[in-house]
Amino acid sequence: MKQLTDLQALINEAIDKLAFPQQPADLYEPISYILTLGGKRLRPALLLMACDLFGGDVESAVQPALAIEVFHNFTLMHDDIMDNAPLRRGQVTVHEKWNANVAILSGDAMMVESNKLMMRVPDAILRKVMDVFNETATGVCEGQQIDMSFEQRSNVVIEEYLNMIRLKTAVLLGGTLKIGAIIGGATLTDAQLLYDFGVNLGIAFQLQDDILDVYGDPDKFGKQVGGDIISNKKTYLLIKALELAKGHQADELNNWLTIQLFDLPEKVSAVTGIYNELQIRKYAEEAMHTYADKAFKALDDINLPEERRQYLRQFADSLLVREY
Amino acid sequence: MKQLTDLQALINEAIDKLAFPQQPADLYEPISYILTLGGKRLRPALLLMACDLFGGDVESAVQPALAIEVFHNFTLMHDDIMDNAPLRRGQVTVHEKWNANVAILSGDAMMVESNKLMMRVPDAILRKVMDVFNETATGVCEGQQIDMSFEQRSNVVIEEYLNMIRLKTAVLLGGTLKIGAIIGGATLTDAQLLYDFGVNLGIAFQLQDDILDVYGDPDKFGKQVGGDIISNKKTYLLIKALELAKGHQADELNNWLTIQLFDLPEKVSAVTGIYNELQIRKYAEEAMHTYADKAFKALDDINLPEERRQYLRQFADSLLVREY
Repeated sequence: MKQLTDLQALINEAIDKLAFPQQPADLYEPISYILTLGGKRLRPALLLMACDLFGGDVESAVQPALAIEVFHNFTLMHDDIMDNAPLRRGQVTVHEKWNANVAILSGDAMMVESNKLMMRVPDAILRKVMDVFNETATGVCEGQQIDMSFEQRSNVVIEEYLNMIRLKTAVLLGGTLKIGAIIGGATLTDAQLLYDFGVNLGIAFQLQDDILDVYGDPDKFGKQVGGDIISNKKTYLLIKALELAKGHQADELNNWLTIQLFDLPEKVSAVTGIYNELQIRKYAEEAMHTYADKAFKALDDINLPEERRQYLRQFADSLLVREY
Repeated sequence: MKQLTDLQALINEAIDKLAFPQQPADLYEPISYILTLGGKRLRPALLLMACDLFGGDVESAVQPALAIEVFHNFTLMHDDIMDNAPLRRGQVTVHEKWNANVAILSGDAMMVESNKLMMRVPDAILRKVMDVFNETATGVCEGQQIDMSFEQRSNVVIEEYLNMIRLKTAVLLGGTLKIGAIIGGATLTDAQLLYDFGVNLGIAFQLQDDILDVYGDPDKFGKQVGGDIISNKKTYLLIKALELAKGHQADELNNWLTIQLFDLPEKVSAVTGIYNELQIRKYAEEAMHTYADKAFKALDDINLPEERRQYLRQFADSLLVREY
């Protein structure tokens, strides 16, 4: 088994070699720009890992892996317009550096480019791969729409939230692994099990991210602790708290969600206090473990030598056991 | 040969049957909305016609034909955001009826849907069809970007303009015909000739549209005569006039392009007067005929029974010989 870091390096090399036309500059420069902002390249590396797991030739999976990275960055480019985000990975977003029209159209062109890259698989598996890719893309669009609609709604329930993160985040992880498995020669059963592993791991990972936003170690968590609380983001924790809070607690929580002017640390501290009283962390961790268990269960059923399953388990552990 | 009107009816029927998921409503309702705004359904009908020309089963081409219509409407949905257009086919545009974010994301989802529909061809031609479709999509994105960049530029030359309309409008016509031909069982040579026919016909058609905007019969031309002049749109006529005008004429033309407050009929009349002095109509008609001739030349070389080539000629004539 190749190491994930080696696979990430392979992807970085391939991204450096990706050549887009010179003209029209305002169509292709933003594509090169967003792709050079970096990121961990985890998704494309996982596609290679899935291929490698089943004994496939990793080199043959590099272009489809790039397709996943280009697709992911296309969704980021469009999401940043919708979220009015000024920064992406610490750099100016495309719609700020150029303008929204450029970001819309470059994103569209990126999606076409990702389709072209994904087509670079043998004829025998072309339809299977493209079907997974298209279904994944539909899921990601649905997830983004549901997430946007949550901002306008006050009655989101846990089940809807879990469905949203499944679509917005987890199906891309699942689809990526499934495509890698197909390219690697896995049976459809094993490819589907790896998909289930990826989707459930993705949900668990997002739930962990929700928890870390509140309970993470500021020195280890990459983002500002309490950022979700400050922005009233409907995370698992907030939705669960709104469900459980009664009387005075509910009033206080709703007050913090409503007021426009507040002291940032005071709001973070007050809302965290309510979460603590309601034992929200425990509920969130239980949910996270439920999905992690589902992921490990799917993994156990994959027809692979035990040491390869072990490799996947270690990867999942490394994603999930981040220190709080 | 089936009649084009019958093929258009077949497409309308199939569009009525297109079913999208109910949820998320803000993702799928805009797709149904824009598809029911109508339009002539010329592109999908031409895909069926191309299939029919080579003796293919028209029914087998209906889903790919819908792919073209869905793709075309996806580009309209995004173009309307970029152009800040309030109306599309006399109805409120998606970004006005909902908002820009909905129009961005529904457009993205439409593109995925169009890919899925285009996949519904036999395995044996899947890659060929998807390659043409992806190349076409890239061309359309490039054309839209070049068109947008023209608004910021004062030094556009005729060659650039012809390249822009080729990409923005004509390659979709060519790609549509080529895909229909492939589905119908045409050789790659004949499919490529039909592509050349479509691209050149598309350029000629756009040039005719430029001419009709100025010289069309107001009772027969669907749009406001002089609309391009009022909005300073860089058409073949304006670019050619800017190229040829000297001294006092150039000053007058540039003045009309610069002033913000003007009487609409006065501007249309004055700019048309300059066009007349410079014989712009003659140049534009010559260019149009050059591309029409290229289209007919490609058509002559297609290996088809003469009466089928004749059918295509009549179709091209019906598109191009509109009364002025």
